[in-house]
Amino acid sequence: MNTFCFAADIGGTTVKLGLFSSVGELIDKWEIPTDTKNEGIKILPDTAASIVKKMEDNKIDKSAVTGIGVGVPAPVTAEGVVNGSANLGWKYKHVAKELSELTGLKVKVGNDANVAALGEMWKGGGRGEKNMVMITLGTGVGGGIINEGRILTGEGGAGGEIGHLGVNREETKTCGCGKCGCLEQYASATGIARLAREYVEEHDDTVLAGKDAQSLTAKDVFDALKEGDEGAHNIAVRFGDYLGYGLSLMATLVDPAVIVIGGGVSKAGEIILDYIQPPFEKYAFFANKGTRFTLATLGNDAGIWGAAKLILDDGK
Amino acid sequence: MNTFCFAADIGGTTVKLGLFSSVGELIDKWEIPTDTKNEGIKILPDTAASIVKKMEDNKIDKSAVTGIGVGVPAPVTAEGVVNGSANLGWKYKHVAKELSELTGLKVKVGNDANVAALGEMWKGGGRGEKNMVMITLGTGVGGGIINEGRILTGEGGAGGEIGHLGVNREETKTCGCGKCGCLEQYASATGIARLAREYVEEHDDTVLAGKDAQSLTAKDVFDALKEGDEGAHNIAVRFGDYLGYGLSLMATLVDPAVIVIGGGVSKAGEIILDYIQPPFEKYAFFANKGTRFTLATLGNDAGIWGAAKLILDDGK
Repeated sequence: MNTFCFAADIGGTTVKLGLFSSVGELIDKWEIPTDTKNEGIKILPDTAASIVKKMEDNKIDKSAVTGIGVGVPAPVTAEGVVNGSANLGWKYKHVAKELSELTGLKVKVGNDANVAALGEMWKGGGRGEKNMVMITLGTGVGGGIINEGRILTGEGGAGGEIGHLGVNREETKTCGCGKCGCLEQYASATGIARLAREYVEEHDDTVLAGKDAQSLTAKDVFDALKEGDEGAHNIAVRFGDYLGYGLSLMATLVDPAVIVIGGGVSKAGEIILDYIQPPFEKYAFFANKGTRFTLATLGNDAGIWGAAKLILDDGK
Repeated sequence: MNTFCFAADIGGTTVKLGLFSSVGELIDKWEIPTDTKNEGIKILPDTAASIVKKMEDNKIDKSAVTGIGVGVPAPVTAEGVVNGSANLGWKYKHVAKELSELTGLKVKVGNDANVAALGEMWKGGGRGEKNMVMITLGTGVGGGIINEGRILTGEGGAGGEIGHLGVNREETKTCGCGKCGCLEQYASATGIARLAREYVEEHDDTVLAGKDAQSLTAKDVFDALKEGDEGAHNIAVRFGDYLGYGLSLMATLVDPAVIVIGGGVSKAGEIILDYIQPPFEKYAFFANKGTRFTLATLGNDAGIWGAAKLILDDGK
């Protein structure tokens, strides 16, 4: 009987690692630096070595390990193939095959945002549900769709790209992806800062107008909002309108039980839900009205929790 | 070993029925009228009686039947429960349980548009794929999302409601669902007729302007288009822009290998793809550019093919 599994959440700066019991207890977690030099050729060998060392240190035999679940910042096919990751320097890489050969363990790979969503379903804000969506509001906007307890991967691994929903066909500024009008342009930390800059150029009913517009952050907006600032309220309304609209589009297609909001922006707390839920209700298809909203609870550990779940569920 | 299964596609006028071999051959198909009187209380007993009679006529023993797959015009939960169907007169109905008790057979139920999508994946336009979307352009617009070979049902059975994607936040006319700006308002046969009426009110560069505006149909538009009519082209551009945009939103979330276009409007033929694909490419996230488009091939039989697949796949 397998009693352990490993999880690796590979990011552009660090690889977060976890050792879990097969019933879902986090036994140990640690990090190693991500070496992105030479097209990231050392990332998987370094990850493998760290896992093998952990097994030796803890006298864990390979036969007692279900395998390794992995999250990577790129689209990943159901077979575990990545066709390029800007953050890691990778071009084509068969992550599942390579890491499996390096460790002798079974490997299952998913996109990091999708894997984090799976983690939040298992042990976080979406606990107890099997149809849920997580949206991560960070520097960019990531997302993951969980359908009947499993990640919606899509044909090329690009399922759940909620941040690139086209929510404004009038937009003339370009998103990092090359399109104009992506949700990420309004709902990411960067997007909220931009909404704030645009607002203070034309209004002075806010403390934000007294700051250097170029250095305004999403945190500045939500801090001012909590102080009752009128302008910050207006900026948050605009943010929430785009986000509520985008989430209503998503709900029309995937009908989730719960929508989990995570990422740095969600650290502003429950107050952000007050700005997302009303526009969602306004735009939602009648069957989706009343969809539950909640904040993510696992923070930066969502990735390793989800990666563990990914490998534990494999083949089920 | 089970060697047969039954399929029932329950519509507002008729119930289409099919007898299939377990390897996917259509052995027989027939129809019975749908009796929607008294909240549709007789629909399932009539369906059950027709199936039982077919078994008796063909000397098929219950032990040789995998079960019955069913499509119904309503959201259906994964357990086979309907919470109201306007077309059938049903309020709450546990379709799977009731039909199973009436026949002694296992029953698996899905939404009719979702089930038709499954049929097109199995034996129609999406053959050979496991990640696909079908959109049905009829009086309304229906849709089905197939992920890894299975219907995306969603929490309450309302997954894949592509027709109710909000594609125009400026719209002031109301969709049948109560919202404004649903894709159905521009891409259904009814929606295209409306675009045509609005067009001829303001333009005379079309043969359509010589007809009674109130009786214009989608077929009139596509017939004129095939004759090189300038106005019909402009109407089709508007239809295709909304539809291509809506499909780009869907692709951003579910990343299908192929998009299958079905329903009465698709009878206009390949020419409609010329109006849908370019705007799709314009609005699509880069990972979804190049998604394949094709027409549905099973026509009105898609429902029974998909219902058969639904029951044959159950438990796999």
